[in-house]
Amino acid sequence: MSAPLHEAHPAGSGRRLPDTQQGMRRRNLSRVMHTVRAEGPLSRAAVASRIGLTRAAVSTLVDELIRTGLLEELGPERPGRVGRPGSALAVSGHGPAGIGAEVGVDHLAACAVDLRGDVRARAVRHGTNRGRPPGPVIRELTALVRQVVAEAEREGLWPAGLAVAVPGLVARDARTVVRAPNLDWHDTDLGALLPAELPLTVDNEANFGGLAELWLGEATARDFLHVSAEIGIGAALLVDGHLLRGTRGFAGELGHVPVRPDGPECPCGGRGCLEQYAGEEAVLRAAGLEPGGDRVGVLAERAAQGDEEVRRALRDAGTALGIALTGAVNLLDPETVVLGGALSGLAPWLLPSLEDELARRTAGPACAVAVSRLGPQGPLLGAAHSVVRAVLDDPSSVAGRS
Amino acid sequence: MSAPLHEAHPAGSGRRLPDTQQGMRRRNLSRVMHTVRAEGPLSRAAVASRIGLTRAAVSTLVDELIRTGLLEELGPERPGRVGRPGSALAVSGHGPAGIGAEVGVDHLAACAVDLRGDVRARAVRHGTNRGRPPGPVIRELTALVRQVVAEAEREGLWPAGLAVAVPGLVARDARTVVRAPNLDWHDTDLGALLPAELPLTVDNEANFGGLAELWLGEATARDFLHVSAEIGIGAALLVDGHLLRGTRGFAGELGHVPVRPDGPECPCGGRGCLEQYAGEEAVLRAAGLEPGGDRVGVLAERAAQGDEEVRRALRDAGTALGIALTGAVNLLDPETVVLGGALSGLAPWLLPSLEDELARRTAGPACAVAVSRLGPQGPLLGAAHSVVRAVLDDPSSVAGRS
Repeated sequence: MSAPLHEAHPAGSGRRLPDTQQGMRRRNLSRVMHTVRAEGPLSRAAVASRIGLTRAAVSTLVDELIRTGLLEELGPERPGRVGRPGSALAVSGHGPAGIGAEVGVDHLAACAVDLRGDVRARAVRHGTNRGRPPGPVIRELTALVRQVVAEAEREGLWPAGLAVAVPGLVARDARTVVRAPNLDWHDTDLGALLPAELPLTVDNEANFGGLAELWLGEATARDFLHVSAEIGIGAALLVDGHLLRGTRGFAGELGHVPVRPDGPECPCGGRGCLEQYAGEEAVLRAAGLEPGGDRVGVLAERAAQGDEEVRRALRDAGTALGIALTGAVNLLDPETVVLGGALSGLAPWLLPSLEDELARRTAGPACAVAVSRLGPQGPLLGAAHSVVRAVLDDPSSVAGRS
Repeated sequence: MSAPLHEAHPAGSGRRLPDTQQGMRRRNLSRVMHTVRAEGPLSRAAVASRIGLTRAAVSTLVDELIRTGLLEELGPERPGRVGRPGSALAVSGHGPAGIGAEVGVDHLAACAVDLRGDVRARAVRHGTNRGRPPGPVIRELTALVRQVVAEAEREGLWPAGLAVAVPGLVARDARTVVRAPNLDWHDTDLGALLPAELPLTVDNEANFGGLAELWLGEATARDFLHVSAEIGIGAALLVDGHLLRGTRGFAGELGHVPVRPDGPECPCGGRGCLEQYAGEEAVLRAAGLEPGGDRVGVLAERAAQGDEEVRRALRDAGTALGIALTGAVNLLDPETVVLGGALSGLAPWLLPSLEDELARRTAGPACAVAVSRLGPQGPLLGAAHSVVRAVLDDPSSVAGRS
C-alpha cells in the first residue's frame, strides 16, 4: 500500500481482496481489528465468536496484531505473558498513528490520531496563504507535521502515513493539486514538496470533511451530502458510505454551482456561483465587516446580539445555499444534507432561509438538514482518520514496520 | 427473482452471489451467456478457454442453458444432436424476451427484445395522457403489452418480465409512482394495475434512458450524465456503469434544478426550474409554436430553414441547459454529458450555447457533451433491455420456465 487510498471504502462495505489464503488472512486481520475497536476490550474467545472463526485461528491473528503493535493486552494479572488466552484485548494506543495535515486559505494545521481514534498531537499556524507560492507554504506545513510526529513518537506512536487536506481540486494521483483558486495554485505536485518518508494522500478538504462526518459524526446516515463552507464552499457526496469522487476526482464543487447566472463574476470564470453569495468573504462583505481575525466568531456574536445587517447577510447566504442545494438534492437525492465547516457555527441564522428554499423547491419530499458537530475540524480529522482507517482495513500493510 | 431489479448492475460489475456452489453455478451460467453474447458464435472449447473453466464444466453449463432455451446450437451438420461438442453456440432468438413499456406524456409504447438484443415486436399509441387517471392509461398500456407479447410468442419467444418507464419519481419498491407532475399522478401503485403474470419493474424514464445509453450507446464511457429531455427533463447519473438512484430512488431530477431562482413558477412548487426554459413546451412557447403533432420535427425543420425565432428559442434552451448542467458537472464530475430524449434531435441548435455555458462556468476542466444515437427510443429500449440483462446476469432465474 503506497497510500491510504482506501479511506473511501470502510471495512466490510465492498473491498474485495483476491480469494487467496493471503487475501483471506488480510481480511481476517482487519475483521479482528474492527471488532476489537468497535466492541473491545474483548477476550480472544469473544472475538472468535463475533467473527465466526475458531479460537485457534483468532489467536494466531491476534498474536500477529500484538507483535505489530496494533493490539495490546489489558489485564494486569500475570503480566509479561504475551498472548495469554484469558486476558482482554484492546486497540493499541502505542502503535501506528495517522498524521493529518491541512492547508487552509488562512491557516495550516497538523495532527496525529492513534488507532483508537484519539488525537494525540496537534499544531496550528494562523496566517493567510492566499497568493503565497506552494514551496514556502508546504515548508511551514512540513514543520508542523514534523512537530506532531515528534510529539507522537514521544508517546510511543509511529506515523503510518500522511494525509493532506487542501482547498482545491486534486488529481486522481492523490498528490497533485490541479487547481486551488483561493490559494492561486495550479498543477502543484505536493508529493515533491512533502516529506518523502511517509506514504502520502492528498485530497480535497470537502472530501476529508465528508469522510470525517461518516466516521465520527453523530448521524448514522451513509447517504448524505456534506457541505464544507469556509472561504471556499465544497461538498462531499457519500453514497452507501462511499465517497463519490467523479471521473477525474473533481466532484463536489458545490461552491461553483450557479445560483444567479447573471450574478457577480467568480474567480472560477463563471458568474453568480454559490461562493459569491455564501462564501465566508461574501458574507462578511454583505454584513459590512472586514475580513481577518475570528470572522465567524464575530459574525455569530453580532447575529446573537441582534445585528440586523449581519442577520440579513446570513439569511441571504442561507437562501443562496438553499438554491444551490435544491439543485444538488434534486440531482442526488441524499438522505440528509449536513452543514459542516466554519459556517456550521452560523447555522442558527443560516438554516431557516436555507431550509425554506429547500422545502419549497425540491421536486421530491424535502430533505433533512443537519449541522455537523465537527465543524471546521472535519477536514483535518478526516485526513488523519483516513490513515487510521487504512491501517484498520489492512493491518498487514504496516506489518513490516514495527 | 421477483423483478429484474438488477438492471443497475451489469454483469461482472459488482453483484456478489453467496460463495456457495449454487452461487458459483449461477455466476458461471451468467459468464457463459455474456461470453457467447459478446463474442459468439463460439464452440464449447472456445467458451471454456475464455472463461477459464474446464471443457466438462462448460458443457454441463451449456447443456442447461440450451435446455432452458437461452442458448442454441448453430451448424447444420448432424442436426438434432443437442449438445454436440463441435458445434457453435449462439444466444437463442427463441428463448425469453424482455418486455419494455413506456408511459409518455403524449404516447404509450411497448416492445419485445430478445436475448440477442433485437427488437422483435413493437406497438405505439399516440395521444396525450396529461391529466388522465392512471386506470384507463394503464389499461391501454396493458393492451399494447399484450399485443407485443402475443407477437413475440408467435415468433417462439416467451416474456421473462415487464419493465415500465414512467415520467416521474418511482419509489424504491419499483412499482409505485410517487409523483409524475406532467401526468398529475401521485402515489399510484402500477403493480395493481398491470398484468400480474409478469415480473414487474417500474422505473423513471430517465433511468432507463441512461441504462440504454450504457448498454446500447456508441460511447464506451461508464461515467456519464444522461439527459432525457422531453416534456419533462430528467437525468441519469452512471458511475462506473452503475446507476446512482439516490436514497429514495429520486435522483436525477435535473428538470427541477433552479436556473433562475426568481423565474417563472413551476408545477413542482419551485421557480425558474430548468423545465421552464428547456422543456419541450417551454421551447415551443418561446418559438411561437402551438403544442401538438410532431413538435420536435417541426422545430428542427424551422430551425434548419433559418427561422430566427425558433433558433433563438433553441439557443436560449441550450443556455438554460448549460447553466443547470454546470451545476451538475461541478457536483458530479462525469466523464461525458450525453444529450438524449426528444430534444437530442435539436442538438445542432442547442449545443453551441449549451457547450459555451458549460465551458465558461465549470470549475474544473470542461466536460465533453455527446448526443445520444438512441434519442427518444432510449427509455423504452432501456426498459426492455433491463429485463434481458437480468436474464443474462442470472440465467437460473428463468430456469424453471421453459
